[in-house]
Amino acid sequence: MTTKLIISNGTFASLRPGAERTAVTGTMVIENDMIVYVGEHLPQEYDTSEAVRIDGKGLFFMPGLINTHGHAAMSLLRGYGDDMVLQSWLQEKMWPMEAKFTAEDVRWGTALSVLEMLKGGTTTFVDMYDHMDEVAKVVEESGMRACLMRGAIGLCPEDVQEAKLREAVQFARDWHGKADGRITTMLAPHAPYTCPPGFIEKFVQAAHDLDLPLHTHMSETAAEVAQNVADYGLRPVAHLEKLGFFSRPSFVAHGVHLTDEEIEVLARHDVAVSHNPGSNLKLASGVARVPELLGAGVTVSLGTDGPASNNNLDMFEEMRLAALIHKGVSGDPTAVPAAEAMRMGTLYGAQTIRAEKLGLLEAGMKADIVAVNVNQPHFVPHTDFVSHMIYSASAKDVAHVWVDGRQVVKDGQCLTLDEERILFEAGRCFERLLER
Amino acid sequence: MTTKLIISNGTFASLRPGAERTAVTGTMVIENDMIVYVGEHLPQEYDTSEAVRIDGKGLFFMPGLINTHGHAAMSLLRGYGDDMVLQSWLQEKMWPMEAKFTAEDVRWGTALSVLEMLKGGTTTFVDMYDHMDEVAKVVEESGMRACLMRGAIGLCPEDVQEAKLREAVQFARDWHGKADGRITTMLAPHAPYTCPPGFIEKFVQAAHDLDLPLHTHMSETAAEVAQNVADYGLRPVAHLEKLGFFSRPSFVAHGVHLTDEEIEVLARHDVAVSHNPGSNLKLASGVARVPELLGAGVTVSLGTDGPASNNNLDMFEEMRLAALIHKGVSGDPTAVPAAEAMRMGTLYGAQTIRAEKLGLLEAGMKADIVAVNVNQPHFVPHTDFVSHMIYSASAKDVAHVWVDGRQVVKDGQCLTLDEERILFEAGRCFERLLER
Repeated sequence: MTTKLIISNGTFASLRPGAERTAVTGTMVIENDMIVYVGEHLPQEYDTSEAVRIDGKGLFFMPGLINTHGHAAMSLLRGYGDDMVLQSWLQEKMWPMEAKFTAEDVRWGTALSVLEMLKGGTTTFVDMYDHMDEVAKVVEESGMRACLMRGAIGLCPEDVQEAKLREAVQFARDWHGKADGRITTMLAPHAPYTCPPGFIEKFVQAAHDLDLPLHTHMSETAAEVAQNVADYGLRPVAHLEKLGFFSRPSFVAHGVHLTDEEIEVLARHDVAVSHNPGSNLKLASGVARVPELLGAGVTVSLGTDGPASNNNLDMFEEMRLAALIHKGVSGDPTAVPAAEAMRMGTLYGAQTIRAEKLGLLEAGMKADIVAVNVNQPHFVPHTDFVSHMIYSASAKDVAHVWVDGRQVVKDGQCLTLDEERILFEAGRCFERLLER
Repeated sequence: MTTKLIISNGTFASLRPGAERTAVTGTMVIENDMIVYVGEHLPQEYDTSEAVRIDGKGLFFMPGLINTHGHAAMSLLRGYGDDMVLQSWLQEKMWPMEAKFTAEDVRWGTALSVLEMLKGGTTTFVDMYDHMDEVAKVVEESGMRACLMRGAIGLCPEDVQEAKLREAVQFARDWHGKADGRITTMLAPHAPYTCPPGFIEKFVQAAHDLDLPLHTHMSETAAEVAQNVADYGLRPVAHLEKLGFFSRPSFVAHGVHLTDEEIEVLARHDVAVSHNPGSNLKLASGVARVPELLGAGVTVSLGTDGPASNNNLDMFEEMRLAALIHKGVSGDPTAVPAAEAMRMGTLYGAQTIRAEKLGLLEAGMKADIVAVNVNQPHFVPHTDFVSHMIYSASAKDVAHVWVDGRQVVKDGQCLTLDEERILFEAGRCFERLLER
């Protein structure tokens, strides 16, 4: 049976590049998990019988936000170490605690992040971590969409490397297409500076075998780029190109330190970049060359990175940072305009993870939808809702969220997860980590 | 009669520089408009009879935020022009519309901003605009605290200049100390590039006569600095110093383009800088040298600037930007740590406007207090609330606000202003501006 939802009197983001207007006021119709109509006037012949109706007055609808890089379970370390030099932060704070993470910690840390993301309008997230079965189970339960992968650090004996690779492959096989297709998987050697070349090549081969895309961290810090040159005589882009990484559909996180030539190589291989402005600023990694990347035709999407280096999962904030910092740093106030920042948080995110049916509110796309209450002081006057979403909104402005046609957030409350329990359990996991 | 309020089981920000801990859990007592106790254990001899009691469990209390630069009525132009080159934005969008502003427009535009600020935890704001009597009346009605001044642009015939000066002086006289002392006033020639030297000198003389501080825009853009050198043979700091501006207690907005020598001059004269990171980034003015300013002992506070160049009035966002961008741009992850960013939004704001009894939660300070609900996913685990306020919070997280001991926001709702009416009237003002 077809479930129909008709949203009338709403204003809907219209973000296809080159579209005449960035929003249209009218009606949207959803059948099961798909959008079947968005426009000013619903055709009279459309059979509205048995449809659920929602009055969209006072709401702005946009595609669900897509967070293309993160480590959700690290929410357990939010605020545990800030304002520190990167190596001290990693060696004294993050790594000793992460080494103690159990499957249960990953479960509750991920649930905490999934809850925050859903309530804040993120409908799809990329996650690269350990104990990924736990992550997938949380995703399945929450109704969220995710692109998941076991991140593998190769600084270990060969047998441990092999075990990690097997685990990554097994996870990718087990979960690809699960949860009604809401879960997809990829393969992810952690980074060129944490994985020997031979280990990366094995992941590339596995990606070919399974016909899956690849993801990795790349050129996040200047030190890491210099180390790559010292170790292998090549900067990271040429290094990964040589290892065949870009022969697969692939995307990299960060891409802060890139030369013109490297940008050219990424564009040629259609390698997308997950830009993580909040994390890059907080960890003092630098400012990515986003206007140049976009100008070269590289797909640039947005990620929060792990919550310990952000420290929230508010994709509105990442869109705003992307729109603001590249203006301030380049001196060009037309850099990364509002509509482009919103595409980075939605459409370009979909393109990054190769999800053809996500990222636009159009007939034929999946019904992953966010509704923001615009009857609030910071959205008045109603001049330009796309501008308001980028320059004024935060995660807390989200009223309703649908994923795959199913409502998962209503009036700011998550319908699929037990918030009180998750806050309690996540707090308890942190206490126990301190004690262990 | 003394009104007593006792808040138990709360966690309170402890931001005095050099304090051992940044927060203390215990009790706060307010008598009328003043804080009389903050600490772990309320002395047993304290007479608690007839006190109102609040359970502070699950709340984090911090000093009210102080927004040290803005033009509140410009909220009417929020989203009316974005992503434009500065001169086109001013000449094609802002100035033609502002020229049409009536007293009524200023009234409703200001009310819209005051509503947004109060709900978002800002308890004091600096406003430099026109029709300032309307601004003062809104402040009086709202229960908010403000430091107000008629901003005067001197690019006009001498008789018009004189009329503006008289108006500025009259306003400063009429309203200083009004609204139970919640309103203070200053004098404000708009900027060195919009005021001839002789006009600025008249403001300096008036400030001496009235014994009031001075405020102005300074060194916001590189072009403006170059123009100052071309016109007067001096960079703006030396120019203002020569005109006697710094002989008064004074502070400047922006201060983006400063040399080491200029920073030295500001420090020597105890001239505070209102740092406006959101506006500076959006208008592509550049990144102020905040770590250097703080290092030289200059008081650096935070301002949103007008809502048309921000585009919200969320001081949590300004604190976060201040904490993030100077790390990313300097490459030093220890730059502007969380507690320092919070001081910039509170204590240093109080010092900027010379308000000795604001900016700290301590006995003897005014009861301007913000309570944030920390039982939310993005504040879990409860590792470090100051970090959470800077790196995770937004204006929408504010639950309660007190100004001068009076509660003005409760459970996110403003108790003193009619929100529905303000949203309606502000929207109508904008429509009429378009038609005029």
